[in-house]
Amino acid sequence: MPEPIALVDALSTTRAIRRYTDDPIPDADLNRIMWLATRAPSGSNRQGFRFVVLRDGPNAAPARALIREGAQQTWGNKRVKDHYDTGSGARDDSAKARMARTMEHFVEHMHEAPVLIFACSLTGNGDITSGSSIYPAVQNLMLAARALGLGTALTTVHRGRQKEVRELLGIPDSVETAALIPLGWPKGKFGSGMRRPVKEVTYWESWGSKRG
Amino acid sequence: MPEPIALVDALSTTRAIRRYTDDPIPDADLNRIMWLATRAPSGSNRQGFRFVVLRDGPNAAPARALIREGAQQTWGNKRVKDHYDTGSGARDDSAKARMARTMEHFVEHMHEAPVLIFACSLTGNGDITSGSSIYPAVQNLMLAARALGLGTALTTVHRGRQKEVRELLGIPDSVETAALIPLGWPKGKFGSGMRRPVKEVTYWESWGSKRG
Repeated sequence: MPEPIALVDALSTTRAIRRYTDDPIPDADLNRIMWLATRAPSGSNRQGFRFVVLRDGPNAAPARALIREGAQQTWGNKRVKDHYDTGSGARDDSAKARMARTMEHFVEHMHEAPVLIFACSLTGNGDITSGSSIYPAVQNLMLAARALGLGTALTTVHRGRQKEVRELLGIPDSVETAALIPLGWPKGKFGSGMRRPVKEVTYWESWGSKRG
Repeated sequence: MPEPIALVDALSTTRAIRRYTDDPIPDADLNRIMWLATRAPSGSNRQGFRFVVLRDGPNAAPARALIREGAQQTWGNKRVKDHYDTGSGARDDSAKARMARTMEHFVEHMHEAPVLIFACSLTGNGDITSGSSIYPAVQNLMLAARALGLGTALTTVHRGRQKEVRELLGIPDSVETAALIPLGWPKGKFGSGMRRPVKEVTYWESWGSKRG
C-alpha cells in the first residue's frame, strides 16, 4: 500500500499510463477500486453503470484479441485522418511522431494489461448527457487506481469491435460499452499531462470572455 | 483553506451538495478549481472542453432566470414520469417523498448559487463517447471543489432552456452545454451517498457474472 496521496496531488498528476508490468492485481485492490468508482454521481442516482472486469477467465483470450483488433483499426484510421505521418509528424522528434510511437505500442500491447475493465452504460438516451452517468464513475475509477499506485488510461478503441465484444461477453445490445480501461502497475511515472492554460478554456459570464 | 483531504476520503464522501450559503467564492479558489478540472483526460487530449462561469456579470440575472425555468420544467416532468407523488411517494416519510422535497428546494434555489458553471463540449459526435471528453473534467471539478471545502452537484436541468442559454451567452449552436454545476459553501455535510453494493454492478469475465 503506497503512502496516502492528497486529493489535490492526485488530480494534478494522474496522467494516462499506457505501459504496465506483468504483475497481477490483488483482488482486494480491484474491489477497493470498484467501490470507489461506484461512489460517483449518476442521473437521479440511478447508477446505471455496470463494469465487466476481464482478467484470465475463459473469455479473456478472445476478448483481448477483439480489443487488439479494435485498437489497431481505430488507431489506423486516426493515424491517417489526423495526419500523424505528414507535416510536422514526418519529423522523428516532433510531438506528433512521439505520440504516434506511443500509440503504436499501446494498440499492440494494451490488450495484454493484467486487467481490462469495460465501463458499460444501461441508461443511454442518444445524447451527450448519457455520458454524465458513466464517465464520472470512470474518472473515479482511474483516480482510485492511482490511490493504490496503479496506472490506467481512458480509451474507447474497442468500439470498432463493440458488436463482437457484446456477443462474446453476453452484453445486451441496449448497453453501451462506453469505455475500456486497461489497469496495471505502471512502467512509466505519474505526472502532469500537457494541457492548455486555464484561461484558454474558461470563459467568464459569456462565451469567449477571457480574463487573467 | 481546509486541511488537505486524502484522495480516497474524497472519492468516498463527495456527495451532491444542493444547499449553499450566500458567502462568495474567492477568485483564487475558482482558478484553482478550474486548473484541476482541466487536468482531466479527453479524447486524443484535444481538451474540447470549455467552461462558462457565471457570477454577477450583466448576463447573470437573465441566465439564472433561464436556469430556474429549465430546472422547474425538467423536475416537473420527472416528478410525474417517475411517479414521485404516487405509490410509496405518497407517504411523507418515504425515500421518494424526501427526494421530492430536496428536489423542490433545489429547483427553486439552485439558480441562486454564488457560482454556476456550464461545462461545454466542442467535440460532440452524437454518441455516448462524446461524454468521455467532458464528464471526467466535470468530476475533477467537483472533486477539486471538495478539496477547498466547496459543494457542488452535477445537473443537466438547464437543458430544457439550452437554446435560450446559448443565445444569451453567445454559445455556438455546435457546442453542447453538457452539464451545469452550481458551486457554493455547503449548508449540508459531505458524506457517503446511497449506492448499490459493488457486487451488483461489477461483473467478472462476462456480463452478469457476479462473485463475492
